[in-house]
Formats: sequence, C-alpha cells, structure tokens
Amino acid sequence: MTKTPVAIVGATGYTGVEILKILLRHPRAEVASLTAKVDGTIKIQDEFPELKGSLDMDCSPVDTEAVCRKAEIVFLSLPHTVSMRFAPAFLKAGKKVIDLSADYRFPRKEDYESWYGSPHADPEGLSHAVYGLPELFRERVKKAKLIANPGCFPTGAILSIFPAAQAGLLASPEAIVDAKSGVTGAGRKASLALLFPEVNENFKAYSLTSHKHTPEIAGVLSAALGKEMRVEFAPHLLPVNRGILSTIYLKLAADASEEALLDLYRRRYGNEPFIRIYPKGALPQLREAVGTNNCLIGLKFNPRTKNLILVAAIDNLLKGAAGQAVQNMNIMQGWEESAGLR
Amino acid sequence: MTKTPVAIVGATGYTGVEILKILLRHPRAEVASLTAKVDGTIKIQDEFPELKGSLDMDCSPVDTEAVCRKAEIVFLSLPHTVSMRFAPAFLKAGKKVIDLSADYRFPRKEDYESWYGSPHADPEGLSHAVYGLPELFRERVKKAKLIANPGCFPTGAILSIFPAAQAGLLASPEAIVDAKSGVTGAGRKASLALLFPEVNENFKAYSLTSHKHTPEIAGVLSAALGKEMRVEFAPHLLPVNRGILSTIYLKLAADASEEALLDLYRRRYGNEPFIRIYPKGALPQLREAVGTNNCLIGLKFNPRTKNLILVAAIDNLLKGAAGQAVQNMNIMQGWEESAGLR
Amino acid sequence: MTKTPVAIVGATGYTGVEILKILLRHPRAEVASLTAKVDGTIKIQDEFPELKGSLDMDCSPVDTEAVCRKAEIVFLSLPHTVSMRFAPAFLKAGKKVIDLSADYRFPRKEDYESWYGSPHADPEGLSHAVYGLPELFRERVKKAKLIANPGCFPTGAILSIFPAAQAGLLASPEAIVDAKSGVTGAGRKASLALLFPEVNENFKAYSLTSHKHTPEIAGVLSAALGKEMRVEFAPHLLPVNRGILSTIYLKLAADASEEALLDLYRRRYGNEPFIRIYPKGALPQLREAVGTNNCLIGLKFNPRTKNLILVAAIDNLLKGAAGQAVQNMNIMQGWEESAGLR
Amino acid sequence: MTKTPVAIVGATGYTGVEILKILLRHPRAEVASLTAKVDGTIKIQDEFPELKGSLDMDCSPVDTEAVCRKAEIVFLSLPHTVSMRFAPAFLKAGKKVIDLSADYRFPRKEDYESWYGSPHADPEGLSHAVYGLPELFRERVKKAKLIANPGCFPTGAILSIFPAAQAGLLASPEAIVDAKSGVTGAGRKASLALLFPEVNENFKAYSLTSHKHTPEIAGVLSAALGKEMRVEFAPHLLPVNRGILSTIYLKLAADASEEALLDLYRRRYGNEPFIRIYPKGALPQLREAVGTNNCLIGLKFNPRTKNLILVAAIDNLLKGAAGQAVQNMNIMQGWEESAGLR
Repeated sequence: MTKTPVAIVGATGYTGVEILKILLRHPRAEVASLTAKVDGTIKIQDEFPELKGSLDMDCSPVDTEAVCRKAEIVFLSLPHTVSMRFAPAFLKAGKKVIDLSADYRFPRKEDYESWYGSPHADPEGLSHAVYGLPELFRERVKKAKLIANPGCFPTGAILSIFPAAQAGLLASPEAIVDAKSGVTGAGRKASLALLFPEVNENFKAYSLTSHKHTPEIAGVLSAALGKEMRVEFAPHLLPVNRGILSTIYLKLAADASEEALLDLYRRRYGNEPFIRIYPKGALPQLREAVGTNNCLIGLKFNPRTKNLILVAAIDNLLKGAAGQAVQNMNIMQGWEESAGLR
Repeated sequence: MTKTPVAIVGATGYTGVEILKILLRHPRAEVASLTAKVDGTIKIQDEFPELKGSLDMDCSPVDTEAVCRKAEIVFLSLPHTVSMRFAPAFLKAGKKVIDLSADYRFPRKEDYESWYGSPHADPEGLSHAVYGLPELFRERVKKAKLIANPGCFPTGAILSIFPAAQAGLLASPEAIVDAKSGVTGAGRKASLALLFPEVNENFKAYSLTSHKHTPEIAGVLSAALGKEMRVEFAPHLLPVNRGILSTIYLKLAADASEEALLDLYRRRYGNEPFIRIYPKGALPQLREAVGTNNCLIGLKFNPRTKNLILVAAIDNLLKGAAGQAVQNMNIMQGWEESAGLR
Repeated sequence: MTKTPVAIVGATGYTGVEILKILLRHPRAEVASLTAKVDGTIKIQDEFPELKGSLDMDCSPVDTEAVCRKAEIVFLSLPHTVSMRFAPAFLKAGKKVIDLSADYRFPRKEDYESWYGSPHADPEGLSHAVYGLPELFRERVKKAKLIANPGCFPTGAILSIFPAAQAGLLASPEAIVDAKSGVTGAGRKASLALLFPEVNENFKAYSLTSHKHTPEIAGVLSAALGKEMRVEFAPHLLPVNRGILSTIYLKLAADASEEALLDLYRRRYGNEPFIRIYPKGALPQLREAVGTNNCLIGLKFNPRTKNLILVAAIDNLLKGAAGQAVQNMNIMQGWEESAGLR
Repeated sequence: MTKTPVAIVGATGYTGVEILKILLRHPRAEVASLTAKVDGTIKIQDEFPELKGSLDMDCSPVDTEAVCRKAEIVFLSLPHTVSMRFAPAFLKAGKKVIDLSADYRFPRKEDYESWYGSPHADPEGLSHAVYGLPELFRERVKKAKLIANPGCFPTGAILSIFPAAQAGLLASPEAIVDAKSGVTGAGRKASLALLFPEVNENFKAYSLTSHKHTPEIAGVLSAALGKEMRVEFAPHLLPVNRGILSTIYLKLAADASEEALLDLYRRRYGNEPFIRIYPKGALPQLREAVGTNNCLIGLKFNPRTKNLILVAAIDNLLKGAAGQAVQNMNIMQGWEESAGLR
C-alpha cells in the first residue's frame, strides 16, 4: 500500500515539528515536503536533534508549486494572517488543506477582521472552510477541502461546555473559562517574555477580556447550540512545557447530581476515541493529558452555589493543534480516525 | 533597648522557619525558644543549612512551662487541631499568642467542628480570638491576646473582594475564586503527592467545592460586610515553590470604568503598607509578590459580561502566613507595622 | 501467536510501572501478574491514572507461588537486599528472572557485602547471574537464567569509557565521572529530601567518593578490560523528572584527533540498536535521550590538557532500568532486540 | 551623611538590575544615573515591575558626559568589547570604574585578543586594571581606579582551587572544573536556546574545551601562585534561574585527611566576610548560596584515587557579578566591605 504524500508548511515551529513526529509513525501518510521561513535549505534533524536517527530530510523556504508537485495534503502551520495568503493556491491545485492558524475559524469575515485587526485575504476560502472539531462536526469534516483547525484553548473549553449547555441546564448563557497553558502554547519565537528566567517560578494571567480565543469559543458554541453563548475567557501562563488545564464555571438552573451530569457527558461522548470522562470524585491532572491526543474531562457540582465546575485537560500541541490536525486528516481521508495518534 | 523574647512552637515547618528568618532581622523582637516535633534536641541550622552562619540555636520538643519562662510572645505554627491544645496554657500564663493554624479562625464553634470534623478543645479561646487581617481588623488586632492568623488563600481573596462588595457593586453576593498556589502551601511533610516528579511538569485542581478555606473566606467577608456572601473557591497546585495567584470573578450590577474601580481600591487601601494596587492595564505576576509581605491587586472589567476580574498575588509564606503573623505581632505590640518585613 | 506471560514484582515504583508501560506495547510478551507492597489488592490504574483506558488490572502483595503459576518471566523491581530473598524461588521454579536491584551485580559476594553492608542471601544465584549490559555481554545474556540489570549511572558510564580504555589510549587507569540525574532516579518514596520545594531551584552533589555505583562501574570495566580501572564517581541531583547526563574525563597518553576517536566509538558500537554516537562538534542534551532506550555519546578532546571528555545521556528509567531490562528479556528469548522499545 | 552618587551603564540586563537592587539598600551609595540600550527614555520600574513602589527612575541611552556630571562611581554592565569603548572617557573624567565585562580581566592584551577575537581598544586601561577578587587581591583593589570584576564561573573556581594549590598539595598542576550554572548566567537576551521549553526538563554541557572563562581561571591562578596552572573547564546549563555549583577535581601528591584540608581552607579564609567553609561531611547545595554574596565551599578526599573533590556554590548574579562589584566598590571607597550585601 503506497502512502499518501503530505506537506508541512511551517515545519520549524513547535506545532510543525509535532505534526512531523506524528506522521513518522502514521500507517497511511508520509511526509513529502517540509518548508519553513529559513535561510536556504537546512536539515530538519539539525534543528531538532531528537529526530536524528529517525529522519534525514531537507527543509526549505516555501515554494507553492514545488509543494503542489510533491504532496496531496497540506498542513499550514503558519502565523495568523500568513496562512490565508498561501491557502488559496493549494486549494486551487486541488489539495486538501488543514490550516492551524486562526485565519479560517470565523464564519463571518467581519468577526475575523475586528478581532485580528487585519482584512481577510481569502473570503472565498472562508465561505467553505469547516471548523475541525471532530466531536461536534465530524460529518462536515468528512467532506471538507479546507479545515480550520481549532485553537488550543477553544478545543478543551468547547468540548467541556457543550453537553451541559445543549441539555438546557444553564441558568444563564455564560461560561467562565479560567485556563492555564504551558509555554509551548506561545509558539517557538525568541522573546524576552518567554525566556526561562521570566517564566520559571512565575505564573501570570494575560489578555484578560481580550484574548482572541474568546470569540472563537463563544462563536462556535453559539453556532452549535443555535443560541447565543457568552464567554469570560481568562488565560494564564504555566511554568511547564506542554498542556492546558481549564477550570470552567457554569451556573445551573437547578440542582443536579454528579452522577446524572457524568451520565450526560458519557452519553454525549461515549464512543469518541479521544475523550475521557473521569469518574465521580476524580479530576484530570495536566500530565495525564500530556503526550496524548485525549481531551480529559472531570466535573464537580456545588449545591451551595449551583455551579457546575468542569476541569478539562489536553496536550496543547496534540489535541490542541497537531494531533487534532492529523485526526482531521484521517477523517477527511476515510482512514481510521486514530491512525498515528496512539 | 532590650528586645522582646519570642517563641516559635513548630519551628521546623516551612512557616515556622520563615518566622524565624524574619525575626533574625527584626529590630524589636528576638527568638528565645524554638520547639518542634523532633527526637531530642537538634540544632535548627542543621535542619536548614541556609541558616548556618546567621544562627546557632537548639530546637527541642515543646515543653510549655519552659517556653513560658523564656518568651513573652508565642507563635504557634502547628497543624490544625493541635494548636488549640497548646494555646490555653500560654494564654493563661499571660503570653500573647499568634496562632497560624485554622483553630481560632471561626467565630462559631459549630462551623469549625463541621468543616474540620473535630470537636473544638478551647471554646473559651475562640470567644475572644481576633482574625488577624490588619487591613480589615487593625483596631481589634491592637487589643488582641490571641490572634487567628488568616489562611494563605483567604488573605488575597478577602482583600480583593472586600472593596467592591462593600461599595455595593455586586449583582449577586457571589465570588468565584480560582486560586493557584506554590507547593510550600501544602506544608513540609513527606508525601508521595508532593514529590518532585509528581508536581513538576504537572498542574491540578484539588478539593473543588470542599476546601476548608471556603467557609473562612465566605465567613469573614459576610461578617465584615454585614451580609451573606457566597464563595466558589477552587484551589490548584502550581509547580513553583512559593506564591499564590488568585483570579477572582465578580458579576457587577452595572457598567463600571476601570479607572473608577481602581480609584475605589486605591481609596480603600491607600495608606496600607502592604497593599499595592496596580495601575490600569497592568496585572500582578506571581514573582512580583514572592519574597515580599505585599498583597498585589490588579483588575479588569469586561463590559460584554459585566464581570469584574481581580488578580491578587501574595507570597503564601509571608503575607499568607509568617509575614502577616509578624505584622500582627508588630500591631499588638505598638511597634512600627513593617518592622522586620521590608 | 500467543504472548509469553510476564510478572512484575514491585509494580508501583517508577521503574515497575515503566516496565508495565513498555510491555503494554510489546508484540511478544504480556503482563500476567502485578505485585507490590500494598495493603490488599488495588487497581494499578488507580495508582497511575495515566494508565486508565489502556489497562484494568489488579496489583496484590507478592505471593511467590501464585506468580509462578501465571508467569514465565519475572521482573524483580525491588529494593536492594529484598530481591535476593525472592529470586531463588522463581529460579527454582524454572522462571527466567531479571533483577533490577543491585543484589546480583557483583561477581564477588565480598564486594557486595562490603558496599551494601548486608550478608548476601543467595550466593548460588550470584554464581551464575549475568550482568545485563547487552552491548558488552550480549552472548552471555542470551544464555542467562538470572540477569543483574545494570544500575542507571553505570550504564552510561561504562558504555562511554569502555572503547577508549579497551583501545589502550589512557595515560592512567582512571576515569572521573561527574553525573547528573533526574529525580526519578531516587525512586518513588515519600522523603523530605525529594519534596518539590527541596529539589526545585536547587542542585547538589551527594555521596561523593562513597556511592554504591562506584564499585559497579569500576568492577565491570576492570573485568571487561582484564585490567584494573579506578573510578571517581560524583553523582548530582538535577531538578528534572528523568534522565542522566554524565560528563566523563579521561587522560589520554597521546594526542588524538576527534575524528579518530569518534571513528573508534562508531566502529565499536556501529550496529548497536540503542547507541548513538554524535558527530564531531555535537554533544547530546539530556532531553534527546528522555523517552528513548538510547545511550547517546558525544566527545571532545582537549589538546592543552590531553583530556578526552565524553558526554553520555540516557533516560534513567529506560536504558537505565526498565528499557534495558526489556532489552535483556528480548535477547534471552531470542526475540527482536528492540521489540517494545521504539 | 550625603551618599556617593553612582551610575549603572547597562541597567536593563540581569546584572545591571541586580546592582540597582543592592544599591537601593546601600547605606553610603545612591543611584544617580541609569542608562541602557533603550529607545528613548523609559521608566526602569516599567521594565522590572518588582521595583514598583521602591523606585521611580528614568533609564536613557548612555550619554557619557551626562553620566560624568551625575556620578562619581560608574558600573559598566555591558557586553564584552563594548565596555572598553566606554571606560576610557569615565577614567579620564576621574571616575572610579567597575567593569563587569571581560574586557579588562587579562593582563596581557594578546590573551584577550586571541580568546575574544577582537583587538583591544584600551591597552592603557588594561595596564592598570585590577582583577577584583577581594579574597586574593584586596590590597590592590583598595587603590584601584579600574576594576575588572571577575567572571561568574572563575569566582568560585579560583577561590576553591587556590588554597590547595598554594599549599603545594597538587600532584600535577591541573584542575578539572565541572560547573553547572543557572540560566541568568547567559544574560537577558531573546534567544531560541534560552526559551523556557528549550531549557526546562533539559540539561547540557556547552563550550567544552573552549569556554572563555578557561584562560581567566588558569591565568589568574597561575599569576597568584607564581607557577603555571592548567584548567579543564566544562560548563553546563541548569534548569534553574540562579546560582552556580562547581565540582572540582584535584589530584593530590599524597594522602591527606579531610580535617587537615578543611583546616587549611579555614585558615586561608578565616576572616573573609563572604566565604563559608562547610564542616567535614557537609557539602553546599545551590540554594544555600542563592540570594547571598557568599561563596560556599565544601570538600571530600578520596583515598582510593587521591582526588580532592571541592564543591563551590555562589549566586551567579551576586558573588558572581553584581554583589562582588559592590564589594569591590566598598573596598575602593574604604567603606565597610559588606555594606548593602547582607
């Protein structure tokens, strides 16, 4: 069986190299092209020495036509506003595109432009892009040509909030999402604020009330529920390499038992290959998600306050980025959904 | 000027040794007795080598009478339910007692007994103990004989919530306190869950809806406000040594400007030696509090959700324990409030 | 093809659970028995939640006869002096035993007894045990019934020193091994010295001149070389979870080029599945070894001092313990040497 | 008593801001000028929020004449090759200069030029600069106009090696210095290699055989001893913020008791305010030095190998840079040597 050739555009970021590592063990796909913003052609294993011995491959500046000749599926692991300049050419050449930036995550051009402060360069692409959260939109993903791979924070938040909201349990259409992310979530760029001594033995909130994942969480939930949902999203920077743990507060309209709530979540996600609902009394810890493509969900209900508290944990580079991107590829191709992801 | 002799009962915990370190540089007090649960007499500097060169002092099992002969002020740095067995003897001998456990923090015996699951051994002491949060109760602290030193989580939470609640700004009498604490907050005890490999590269929520600091925060706020306040308190364990950063969500009844809110906080705490209100647009980071006795407070208001989000940071061993205990001693003795604490 | 049933005696330590994780993906072996020093029967996945979803298995106190009925191969992941009390019964029952303690690493009973301060309980076992370092002793491992799995520090040290020493390059029969280990190397036991706040932001040397791995390194090298080798072994505790990086100093008798030295190492280890010799100018970093069963080796030669400096990195729980144990099992069984280890 | 005005040129690096923090509590000196490579004038407390409340001060691009008008003592906290372009103007204006770069650490211009690969711009300054290691060169420091403040690694290494070498105990004139440094030792510059995810859970050796502190250690020791000393210096990067711990190996000519060796060290450094010799059986840990201006020294002797192993720990930003710089200032000014440093 020949493998399907795949390109990674933007291979030298934390997400790009993670896609590469997954594809190295994928039974159906193989990496045919690596490109990045580099000076001339480099060896990818010189940039990431842990690849030595597994791989010997060039990485060059992106040349759209060369990529099209080599690959049938293209992962765009590029900064926001850059992806939408590359996607149209690949789509036009008939390639399937999985974009890991935010460029195609908003159905309405205006929303993108107001939150990202930049005109959208590809409204055409936007009109048929599919938000690649398989647990909510698997049928659409199957037929998609262009996937907007979800943001790392939205993945865990949306998956946790959706069942309770859909079941009509909320007293008010609002969710508070207090999220804590490891440092690779910020990308691999030289920045004073991300130096070891600035992050280690420290912890901080950032972008309160204004983080760009706020409208993504609220927008996707509102669309999926068919009614408006408000989100207070508060991200924090954890001194760990990987993982996001979010603590989510929902006010319920009536008392509920934890058993019944867990049952609701288990029914909603029972057959999902990458969702684990924790049993009563147990909550996921960050490290239990790290290194996996799972979204772990646990919950507590407080009868004194009528708050449902959800704890969701994912690996920001896997279920929050590269792993989910490969999961989307598997679905688009009709392959086993967990291929390469165990 | 002779210095006032002080005893530390429970000197080998993280909090006990922190009191000791503060007192080493205190202009008016000096350590006259160190006791702890040890086998025979040890040298405190053998247990904490960083003290070598500054101090050569014995630490023995506690002998109440011997402590009374040596000291006029007694810090009890003992586990919950143990403090209340020692405090009465010191009080009877006319000593001033500053207790760092939870044993005297609840005005009503029943509340203590229901949350701590143990009968209260000293209802007499409970009846005249003063909750030692100087910024709210300084006048009472001045006259106290027995101080219930506040818990680490309640200190930052109460100080942050109080001004907005007192000003009548809240739409509902509820606060969500999402708190993140360094590991020394759990005390210095050999435990699998606190081993380096269990905490490092990890993050978790714990005791959701049931943490014993919940009734302390709610009770103190309710008493200070003269009306019921509900608290959803969610603690998390951070992979850092010291510090607590809490993100607090309050629903306001009406729109408010951040300037006006900051002004309210600055007026309430303007002259406080250990409170720093951050300017508009700035939020405290954990490390800016670590090593100080300060409580740092910053805020954001979200007009879309009408949530006031407060971020409070303290050093759990200083303003959250040993530092605040010394601050209370200074006030009780009529000394400069910041003596030993800069 | 039916899988060979395997027992892990001592399954709740860091090493025991690591063997379990490897065997979960092993094509030829399967775990048939888990035992440990536990109160009654527990579920292993309750102790290690990251196993949930992959495994549902009991772990009980060890019962030698029950283990013998279930398993053909027994991994002993027990403390020193405990292994030798269990091994004889398994050997007598015809089981192959792979012992991860130090109990069978010394050919001479007297050496064991003088360094471990305890009489040896199984001189018979000692007489036919094989030191399980496949790169040096593969032929003996093939025929062994009882494997003494090497210590974590000796593995990297011996593999790095051997080729230069064997080639007769040393000016004096002495190696300085300055080793730095992650915290899991100390085992999973509740201990004040291993609490997060004691290790984090700290670094220390320990057991200088007296660490029990000193005679193991020196003894194995001396035996393999057929001449006496002295070792100055200096271990240090790193604030990381996993991995050992050793910097090794050898005084050469004459000038040597790095090319020629690397060539020597490449020739010695050319076909080894788990050794990587780094190219000229490159040195292994700790994280490049973590998560793999590889021993990474790099070197520099200093013409001013005639010192050959070797840098060796392994994962202490894999090549330094569980991974090497499985590698030994594979060799003993005639299976592919890397089965379960990629 | 008026305080002496001081300038910090290069105030926004880790070392510059550390000098500033020390001077804030100095009884005799006060900061009169802060300059750095900044765009226009900034507030130093905006760059380092932990200064808020203690300080409100501008930091501007350096203007030599303006600095000369304001300050009598100038700390140069600049990169190598930059300091020597600024020092001459300050010296000419009669200022005392303490340079924290390597520019004035080599008595011979040729040595500097061969190791730093750059012509020396101020041979005149070089000819009268004094190497500011007070424990070896206090008398020269007293009269100096220009101090070459020692490198962080050389400080601990030289202080540890000197007594044994001076006493004629060495079998050969060689020291192996295996040094491990926290990340602030690399300076505060945006660099991929210093990002949190690259350093955390990692450890590596770097610049083996070629680090520029090698000739500094060897040169200073050789000059102080009056005979050639060779040094194998191997630095490593630790995942901690601050501190250097070096493990040093010296081959002795004859057996020696640890008591006698410790006695030698205690006699040599008995009255030194910033050196602590650890008692027999005890070794310094990194955190015992962090936050202090002390150099901590412990030792072990191995009769089997005749190696004397020294362990030295300092805070790289204090005794390894800013603290030692202030110590030198105190000596030059005839002030109490520990002013500002306890």
